[in-house]
Amino acid sequence: MHYILTKDFPRHVGEEVTIKGWLYNKRSSGPIAFLEIRDGYRWTQAVAAKASLSPDVWERVEKVTQESAVEITGTVAKHPKKDNVFELQVKDLKILQLSENYPIALKDHGPDFLLENRHLWLRSKRQWAILKIRDAIITAMNQYLHQEDFIKVDSPIFTPNACEGTSTLFAVPYFDLGSAYLSQSGQLYIEAAIASVGRCYDFGPVFRAEKSKTKRHLTEFWMMDAEAAFFDHEDNIRVQEGLVRHIVRYCLEHCQEEFTILERNVESLKKVDAPFTRYTYEEAIIKLNQNGSDIKFGEDLGNDDEGILTKDSVVPVFIEKWPKSIKPFYMKTDPTNPERVFNDDLIAPENGGEIIGGSQREESVDILIERIKNEGLNMADYEWYLDTRRFGGVPHSGFGLGLERVVRWISGTEHIRECITFPRTIGRLKP
Amino acid sequence: MHYILTKDFPRHVGEEVTIKGWLYNKRSSGPIAFLEIRDGYRWTQAVAAKASLSPDVWERVEKVTQESAVEITGTVAKHPKKDNVFELQVKDLKILQLSENYPIALKDHGPDFLLENRHLWLRSKRQWAILKIRDAIITAMNQYLHQEDFIKVDSPIFTPNACEGTSTLFAVPYFDLGSAYLSQSGQLYIEAAIASVGRCYDFGPVFRAEKSKTKRHLTEFWMMDAEAAFFDHEDNIRVQEGLVRHIVRYCLEHCQEEFTILERNVESLKKVDAPFTRYTYEEAIIKLNQNGSDIKFGEDLGNDDEGILTKDSVVPVFIEKWPKSIKPFYMKTDPTNPERVFNDDLIAPENGGEIIGGSQREESVDILIERIKNEGLNMADYEWYLDTRRFGGVPHSGFGLGLERVVRWISGTEHIRECITFPRTIGRLKP
Repeated sequence: MHYILTKDFPRHVGEEVTIKGWLYNKRSSGPIAFLEIRDGYRWTQAVAAKASLSPDVWERVEKVTQESAVEITGTVAKHPKKDNVFELQVKDLKILQLSENYPIALKDHGPDFLLENRHLWLRSKRQWAILKIRDAIITAMNQYLHQEDFIKVDSPIFTPNACEGTSTLFAVPYFDLGSAYLSQSGQLYIEAAIASVGRCYDFGPVFRAEKSKTKRHLTEFWMMDAEAAFFDHEDNIRVQEGLVRHIVRYCLEHCQEEFTILERNVESLKKVDAPFTRYTYEEAIIKLNQNGSDIKFGEDLGNDDEGILTKDSVVPVFIEKWPKSIKPFYMKTDPTNPERVFNDDLIAPENGGEIIGGSQREESVDILIERIKNEGLNMADYEWYLDTRRFGGVPHSGFGLGLERVVRWISGTEHIRECITFPRTIGRLKP
Repeated sequence: MHYILTKDFPRHVGEEVTIKGWLYNKRSSGPIAFLEIRDGYRWTQAVAAKASLSPDVWERVEKVTQESAVEITGTVAKHPKKDNVFELQVKDLKILQLSENYPIALKDHGPDFLLENRHLWLRSKRQWAILKIRDAIITAMNQYLHQEDFIKVDSPIFTPNACEGTSTLFAVPYFDLGSAYLSQSGQLYIEAAIASVGRCYDFGPVFRAEKSKTKRHLTEFWMMDAEAAFFDHEDNIRVQEGLVRHIVRYCLEHCQEEFTILERNVESLKKVDAPFTRYTYEEAIIKLNQNGSDIKFGEDLGNDDEGILTKDSVVPVFIEKWPKSIKPFYMKTDPTNPERVFNDDLIAPENGGEIIGGSQREESVDILIERIKNEGLNMADYEWYLDTRRFGGVPHSGFGLGLERVVRWISGTEHIRECITFPRTIGRLKP
């Protein structure tokens, strides 16, 4: 390679190097031009002084436009005033491709226009920072789960039946077999896989034909489901907390520039390195009623309720042991209170919303059969799942983490559509 | 945790420990029983001697059945004869769940029966080993690509139009927007993302309504697409070779037990650590014709052709610079021969088949427009893609790696359906 990446500038101070990238912005001050260059790794200032350049190079400096592709040769210098900031003193500039009438100016555009041009919008500082934080979260997740002896076992996207109701399922005509449904969660499949590999997780897209237009919903989003044999509710809570703490710590270590771009308050993230708050569902309802919510026992939490419960907490908040009546059939009943299940929702502070839902799973085939019947589900669809209990069923637990929810919280982004590369919603399928 | 994982036995020799797992097999020899236990991490022999057990424990040893869940306490001992093999001298055994009439006996079953019981079949040694190798390959891939400054950028599954013909596309009714098509490759999307992050990859499921029933085809499989700004054909070849070598080396280091179970010849894998063979398409055709193939210039390679080309090679074989006429519009024309494109297919030895397909991409918007027209594609569908060239288009290259193909080759598995957790084919959508 005859060029270097801008992230390697600290190793090349005083040397002449070549970089390749795109012009993000240009400011001119008479015979000096300040070119802001993006090469995918850093935003770097390249300083071009007319006096020290040949006339044709200076002409190209004047001609180059926003988002043109460029190759620049120059000397790496430390920024005169700022620590850890480097710039390039331009000696030569080639225009690889001249960009004309780039549609996204460096000013505010409406969300529809930006979404329509998502393939270009990704180039903005803010979107770059979110993409990088997303990648860091994924890396941290893979790392932590392997440390804890989980391996990745991919669950299928095409599933033969609707496990939790059909109203939000996408159906796909599938040869002579009728319809396939796009997976909403791989949980039931990785429950089968733990009897082979002990602990495992899947990580992939899931689909919800979600008609609500909110800041937290997409029709296609990425979910990580983890499952562990012989884990009870307490083990489950411990690994969820460990995972979230590891992710936050990893991002703090690797994404400093990204947080600066996003103006994300990292002090609040640093505080996540402490035990998380835990409320039972019952405690949560009492606290909510005391704080002005009119939620009734047996109802699900609304966004406002989540806000009230996390308001005073610098760490995420577990809400555990919910009423059985509003939770799916596979959650394990608390033997000390048969109206409760051993589950938890994890709510991020700073309006992060629910980022994880987990539970110990019911291992008794008899209780499962009863609950499948009571909920009016089709028993035949679950015969294979019941096999996992008939043949070596063991206590086990797991949870699902919504990637974009975590990206949204950690990056401090308001709208979830910015937390996935190409968002899909009820009204958007392009580009 | 009051139990340990069998992989940690080397640290506990001589100690009394408890393990939890499943009975894989049992052999009895009068007053001694040899229990083969799977806990997800190793297969371990637990030796139970009637003389040293209380009568009720011995009774449970006699009663316990294949795939029952058990908790065993005993002393870790080195195997008297084998290095690096450990066993457990049983002191206590609890049956957590007694498995009755487990359908998969330790004998041969037909493939349909096994696929129907895939949720249980995963527990066999062979399937365990393949799942573990699959995970190791994914880990190695994430590791290598990050080392090479690629980040993970997920491309969408729902796409608005058919990029390479519609005959093998799955269509999904999508609200009021008509049909969404399930992605067959994220390439075009990550081509847009490189202008933001420089180098990136996606990794997720892709879908082909594949009607052929072969040992190499699935309707749902996992693909990794990588793309790098400023990479030419040679850079592209270099990173593909580096990736495959890293994956093989990583598996050799981490999957010894898995290769033993699969009776995989690791000597041949060790030889993959050398430069790969390279043929141009033209050289390949000549070689094939000399070796009895009746393939004609301008035709695609068949399975037999791939076998001939890799027969004498211990390393994977690149076939590069194919005729433009049989390749997609986005591949870059070789300026020294306008009938060829700068692409490559990588074929694994030992009948591994094609594992990677890559190319330098055409960066000229004018040539792309001409090729889109010539191929009769709908220009409107590609306007957003053409934007990536209009605004800062740069030389760039990328490739796609079929995960199950790589798992199949490295694990030495004949049929690809064993290389994914829950395989989906034209005739199979369950469990």
